[in-house]
Amino acid sequence: MKYDGVDYPDLRSVNQDQTCNIPVSTINPLFALAISYTYTSLIPGITAAGQNKDLIKYTSPADAEFLNYGHCKCLDSVPVTPEGMPTPAIITKTALDLSKMPFLIINAGSVVKPQVPYISFDMNSGNDIRTGNAVDETHVRMALSHGESLGRELAKLSKMVVIGESIPGGTTTALGVLVALGIDAWSKVSSSLTKNPHTLKNRVVEEGMAKAGIPFGGFKNDPIKAIAAVGDPMIPVVAGLACGISGSGSNVMLAGGTQMTAIVAVISAMNRALENICIGTTCYVADDPYSDIQGIANEICSDIPIYAVDLHFEESERLGLRAFANGFVKDGAGAGGVSILAMLKSSGSLTGTSILRSIEIEYDNLTRKQKKK
Amino acid sequence: MKYDGVDYPDLRSVNQDQTCNIPVSTINPLFALAISYTYTSLIPGITAAGQNKDLIKYTSPADAEFLNYGHCKCLDSVPVTPEGMPTPAIITKTALDLSKMPFLIINAGSVVKPQVPYISFDMNSGNDIRTGNAVDETHVRMALSHGESLGRELAKLSKMVVIGESIPGGTTTALGVLVALGIDAWSKVSSSLTKNPHTLKNRVVEEGMAKAGIPFGGFKNDPIKAIAAVGDPMIPVVAGLACGISGSGSNVMLAGGTQMTAIVAVISAMNRALENICIGTTCYVADDPYSDIQGIANEICSDIPIYAVDLHFEESERLGLRAFANGFVKDGAGAGGVSILAMLKSSGSLTGTSILRSIEIEYDNLTRKQKKK
Repeated sequence: MKYDGVDYPDLRSVNQDQTCNIPVSTINPLFALAISYTYTSLIPGITAAGQNKDLIKYTSPADAEFLNYGHCKCLDSVPVTPEGMPTPAIITKTALDLSKMPFLIINAGSVVKPQVPYISFDMNSGNDIRTGNAVDETHVRMALSHGESLGRELAKLSKMVVIGESIPGGTTTALGVLVALGIDAWSKVSSSLTKNPHTLKNRVVEEGMAKAGIPFGGFKNDPIKAIAAVGDPMIPVVAGLACGISGSGSNVMLAGGTQMTAIVAVISAMNRALENICIGTTCYVADDPYSDIQGIANEICSDIPIYAVDLHFEESERLGLRAFANGFVKDGAGAGGVSILAMLKSSGSLTGTSILRSIEIEYDNLTRKQKKK
Repeated sequence: MKYDGVDYPDLRSVNQDQTCNIPVSTINPLFALAISYTYTSLIPGITAAGQNKDLIKYTSPADAEFLNYGHCKCLDSVPVTPEGMPTPAIITKTALDLSKMPFLIINAGSVVKPQVPYISFDMNSGNDIRTGNAVDETHVRMALSHGESLGRELAKLSKMVVIGESIPGGTTTALGVLVALGIDAWSKVSSSLTKNPHTLKNRVVEEGMAKAGIPFGGFKNDPIKAIAAVGDPMIPVVAGLACGISGSGSNVMLAGGTQMTAIVAVISAMNRALENICIGTTCYVADDPYSDIQGIANEICSDIPIYAVDLHFEESERLGLRAFANGFVKDGAGAGGVSILAMLKSSGSLTGTSILRSIEIEYDNLTRKQKKK
C-alpha cells in the first residue's frame, strides 16, 4: 500500500484501491483499549480465551495489565497458554512500545477490575445473550453518551484514535447485533479458535433473538435495543467513542476483526457519519477462509475502508507465535490496528518483519519468566 | 508577565522575576481534574463546600459533571449556593471552553461516583485525619504507581498537563502532610472560607499527628507514611501523575492554592525532580493575607515557580462572582491554572477581563436555570 509517497509492502487495503485514505497530518495516534465481559463467553466451545472457564473473566483485565506493565497482576502467570500461545496483546504492546504510542484503558464492563489506571463508564458486564436481555438499555444509552463525551476530549488530544477491544465471546455478541440490525452475518464472523464454531454461534444468537422476540433485522432502526437484546457492553462504548471522535473531526481506526463491523453497523443504524472511520486488522482476519469481514462490511455500507497488516508470523520459529498465522486468535486487543498505525507513524521504518522480531524478543522474555514460575 | 514576546498584564510570577519559564513549545495543554473526598470535610467549620453536611460529598463529582455537561447530574440543582456563590468550576469550564482545552476527570477517591467518564484508580475516600490513619498505605503506594503509569501516557499526549483538584477539606489534609514532612505551614494554608479557621485546622492536624504518634516532621523522609497518617487520597494521585509526566519530559502545572504545595513537598521528599513542575493559581490565593503560599513553597524549595492570574472579579456586577474577590473559595477545580494556560495558549487574545465576561454569561445562564427550578 502507498501512503504519503512511501510504499508499505506489509500493509494493504482490503476493499479499496491500494491507497490509504487516512490524512497524513493525523499520524500521531492515540490507542484506547476497551476491555469488557459477557457471560456468553462461558458457553462451552465459544472462545479460545482463557485456559479454563474460571480464567476467562481475567482475559481482558490481563490484557490491560500486560500493556501497562509487560506482565499481568490479576493472573499469577503471564498470559501465555501452557502450549505457549500468547495473548494478541503481545503484538499490541510491542507496536505501542516501538512507536511510543500513548494508550488508555477503558473499562467497558469487565467483571474483574484491571490493576491499572483505567477510564470507567461504570458499566456492568453483559449477560449471556441467550437470555435476550444482554445489556441494560439504560447502560447502553449511558455508554453511548459517555463514549461521545470522552470521544470529544480525545479528539482534541489526537487526530487519529485507534480503538481496540478485548472481550471473550465478542464475535458471538457482534453476530447478535449484526443480525438484529438486519445484516446477514450468519457464519461470517471470525473466531479466536482455529475451528470457527459457526453452528454454535448461530444457534446462540437465534436463541437470544427468539427470547427477545425479534426476527432477523427486527431492530433494524433501533440499535440501542439490538445491543440491549443480544449485544455486549463493549459495543455501545466503542460506538459512542467513535461518534464523539469522528464528529469532532478526528479520525478513528476500529482496530479489530469482524467485531468491529458490529460497531460500524450500530453507527450506521444511528444515522451517524462514517466518513472519518475505518477498520484496521491483521491479514489473518482479512484472509480467513472461515469468516468474511469484507462481506459483512459490504452489507452495511460499501465504502468503509478496511486495512490489513501482514506480520509474517508464518516465518517465526516460535511455535506459539506461528499459531497466529494458523488461525489461532487472528487479532484482538487492537493488535492489527496498532501495528498499522505504528508502521505509518514510523514512515516505513517499521515493517511486518521488524515488528515480528521485536514481538519474538518480548515472547522469549515472557516464556522465560513463565518457566521460572 | 512577559511570555514569548507578548505581555500578559493579568498574569504574574509570584516568586520569580516577571518572566514565564514554561517552554513555548508546550502550549497545547491538557487538563486533568482529580476529584476526591476526605471525611475530614465533615468537621464543622472546616470548609465552605456544600450547602450543608449531607451535600459536601457531592461537591467534587458535581464539579466533574459541571465541566462535562455545564450542569450537574448527581445534584438536583446547579452548583450555585442560595446566596448565588458558584463553584470555582465555573471559571475552569469557561476557560476550557474558550481555549478548547481537552480535559480528563480522575476519580481519586470521591465517595460519590461522577456521572461522567472518569479515570479510576480504585481509590477509597480518605478518613478523618484526626484518626491518624487517613489513607490506607497500600492505596497511597498504588496511587503513586498508577499516577506514574498514567502520567507517562499523558506526557505522550501533551507537553503541558495542568492538574487540578476538587476535595472539600483539602487544605487541612494538605496542612497535615506538610507538617508531617517538617514544613512549617501552621496557619499558612488557604481556605475556601472568607474567615480562615486556622486554629481549628491546626488543632485537627495536631490531633491526627498525636494519634499517629508523630511529632512535627516525624515523617520527613517518609512521604508515603505522612499521607497515610494525615493526608488525603488526592495527594498521592496528583504527586504520582506529576512525577510520571515530568519524568517523561513534559511539563506540569499544579493548578490550585496551598494544597498544591503539599504535592510539591511530597515529590521533594521522594527525591524526585521538580524542574518541570510549577504551580498556577489565582491572585486571590497569591495575595491572600490569611495564607502564605509563597512562604510554604520557600520552606520546601526556593525555586518552584508560582504563577497567578488576575480575573478581575472585583469588577463584576454579579455579587456571587464578586465573592471570589472577597476571599470566598479563591481557587479550586483548577480554576487559576486553567485560566493561565488558556491565556498563554491564546497568545494574549484572552485576558482576565475577557474571561470574566464569559464567566458572567455562564453564571447568568446558571442562575436563570436555578430560578426556574
